[in-house]
Amino acid sequence: MRDVAVIGVGMNKWGELWDVPLRDLFVEAALRAMDDAGVDKIDAMFVGSMSPGLFVGQEHIGSMLSDYLGQKHIPGTRVESACASGGLSVRQAMMQVALGWSDIVLAGGVEKMTDVDGGGATYSLATAADQEYECFHGVTFPGLYAMIARAHMHRYGTTLEQLSHVAVKNHKNGAKNPNAQYPFEVTLEEVMGSTMVADPLRILHCSPITDGAAAVILCPLDLAKKFKKHSVVAITGSGQATDTIALHAREDLTYLKATEVAAKRALEMAGKTIKDADLIEVHDCFTIAEICVLEALGVCEVGKGGKLAESGETAIGGRIPVNTSGGLKSKGHPVGATGVAQIMELTLQLRGEAGGRQVKGAKVGLAQNMGGSGGSTVVHVLEAR
Amino acid sequence: MRDVAVIGVGMNKWGELWDVPLRDLFVEAALRAMDDAGVDKIDAMFVGSMSPGLFVGQEHIGSMLSDYLGQKHIPGTRVESACASGGLSVRQAMMQVALGWSDIVLAGGVEKMTDVDGGGATYSLATAADQEYECFHGVTFPGLYAMIARAHMHRYGTTLEQLSHVAVKNHKNGAKNPNAQYPFEVTLEEVMGSTMVADPLRILHCSPITDGAAAVILCPLDLAKKFKKHSVVAITGSGQATDTIALHAREDLTYLKATEVAAKRALEMAGKTIKDADLIEVHDCFTIAEICVLEALGVCEVGKGGKLAESGETAIGGRIPVNTSGGLKSKGHPVGATGVAQIMELTLQLRGEAGGRQVKGAKVGLAQNMGGSGGSTVVHVLEAR
Repeated sequence: MRDVAVIGVGMNKWGELWDVPLRDLFVEAALRAMDDAGVDKIDAMFVGSMSPGLFVGQEHIGSMLSDYLGQKHIPGTRVESACASGGLSVRQAMMQVALGWSDIVLAGGVEKMTDVDGGGATYSLATAADQEYECFHGVTFPGLYAMIARAHMHRYGTTLEQLSHVAVKNHKNGAKNPNAQYPFEVTLEEVMGSTMVADPLRILHCSPITDGAAAVILCPLDLAKKFKKHSVVAITGSGQATDTIALHAREDLTYLKATEVAAKRALEMAGKTIKDADLIEVHDCFTIAEICVLEALGVCEVGKGGKLAESGETAIGGRIPVNTSGGLKSKGHPVGATGVAQIMELTLQLRGEAGGRQVKGAKVGLAQNMGGSGGSTVVHVLEAR
Repeated sequence: MRDVAVIGVGMNKWGELWDVPLRDLFVEAALRAMDDAGVDKIDAMFVGSMSPGLFVGQEHIGSMLSDYLGQKHIPGTRVESACASGGLSVRQAMMQVALGWSDIVLAGGVEKMTDVDGGGATYSLATAADQEYECFHGVTFPGLYAMIARAHMHRYGTTLEQLSHVAVKNHKNGAKNPNAQYPFEVTLEEVMGSTMVADPLRILHCSPITDGAAAVILCPLDLAKKFKKHSVVAITGSGQATDTIALHAREDLTYLKATEVAAKRALEMAGKTIKDADLIEVHDCFTIAEICVLEALGVCEVGKGGKLAESGETAIGGRIPVNTSGGLKSKGHPVGATGVAQIMELTLQLRGEAGGRQVKGAKVGLAQNMGGSGGSTVVHVLEAR
């Protein structure tokens, strides 16, 4: 197995981009990543996207996007694992480089969610849950995560205020990210008093509907050292795991077992423990998710995620900064692109190029990207070299 | 890179299976493959599926199917490249084994097409073409392939009778395949006189709408030798390529460049030429496709595919048997499963277990699986060991 590096990153400014089609979203991000790397030709491409079929009536985007990126006849593969599609794109690209089948591989992700065909964005997103045993009965993701939140509050005494601290922190970070959909701060009072979506989750506890794309360029570590544009960042660990797709079938409603397992696999591959991480990007599709993920990663004890959120330890400058990019909450959540943008954020941080949100001296980063209510998870470990 | 073998294959009997949900289709095929291999635990799973979102309102099937297969917490990844999704599933599984990240990996494919949500099967399938520049104007796949057929007839003098010979041969083979959707023979007259779909293509020139799944189990070649149930079959080559997604953007309407490129890559990896193949499975979604594919593979000269079809050389017992399984035409075409079922057919043939459709002394097989009107292609080479 060859060691693998990230040599280029790019995304567009995320938001409600009504006049930008899916292909243009992707090509813009991909060209930025290629420009960042200093390459004009790639050997293969992966793209994570949850449901271009339901959102815009377009499948087969591995072909379409290779075509529109001007990369004739390259292998172009779409991977999907709901909101973890982007992380899987990075994982498959890493495999292809590590195996030696390709040298310069683009891992992208894209979702065009606002201008939606069919049943609307909430219906399309709900297809990541169990269609026959969850969706059929009317539940959608705000409802599923609300049940997780209620159970966590009941069992561990987690409070609405603690949930709200996650949003306040992530918006504070996102305000320093020029690519974020909502680059502004919110107060604890604003979050706690915002419109109810699914009790106890209010709208400022939820990530938004977003149009966006992100891309990273991977190559063998040896080759990366020849590119002098940026300091070298390696991907040293990748882990993937599944859990029951339906929330009701889990052994524990509030424990994200797939996150634990995927992180264990990724950290073992990298020869690290969670204590080695200088910063973490996690999948905060709802604020309760950040709390549960940090427990499953072992950043805090199980049940103590709420206390961690209000402690300030996960802020930039704290013990372990989490979601320096703004997270899904502030940066936005074009589902297939999210996992790729996490890798972009870690790369910028490990290069020391993260501007106003830089974590000083960051050497090791971990990204956790999750599908559905935790039915799939992919974790990567990145290191400055 | 580790050498990779196929140690188990399985599918269900394909057809209009109104009372079988997607998850049951897949689990039946997967359990048959695991039983054929003699394993009850897999380390990872890939599943090819074109559009479970549009067909049955379910994405995130990597999670769902790992769950329903009882393989807790394994990595489960869906890949999609329209009708080439199954071939890509096999390719990604091969990579994971070759790299040494997993030992026993299931590559499956599934599509549930009859009981369709939304705009119907033809709409859902059309999302494999260019939504903005083809589908928007009303064209669907029978129309696209009809244009290819018309151009081929005009340029090379290919006849309706030659197109029809492809269907006659594939149904003759499929009649000997107990898993085929339409296991019966058809006459030249029946094909030529069948209902018009898109001039010149009649209904017996078109592959059907099918519910079905297929699965193969891969492992390192060294490990495969320890399984004594079947003779050993290795996957020695894998190639993938894309072309423009839109037919009108191709340099040549009737030449499948992605097939040429993918086959070249796969054959080079295997150290073979097309002349070494003892049998070939190709993507005959329409009879004209088999003709164009065999030209792009170099089985005959460009423009001579029609003559090849009527020559009898591609029949079992001929110079180079093509689609011994019955092909998409007779076996059926649950799009995500098709590429996996091709690998199953080659494996059975190379083991000498293909019953009444056995190609005597077959040692090398090639499978070509195609997405859209040729916008993506994946080719594999298998060899008896």
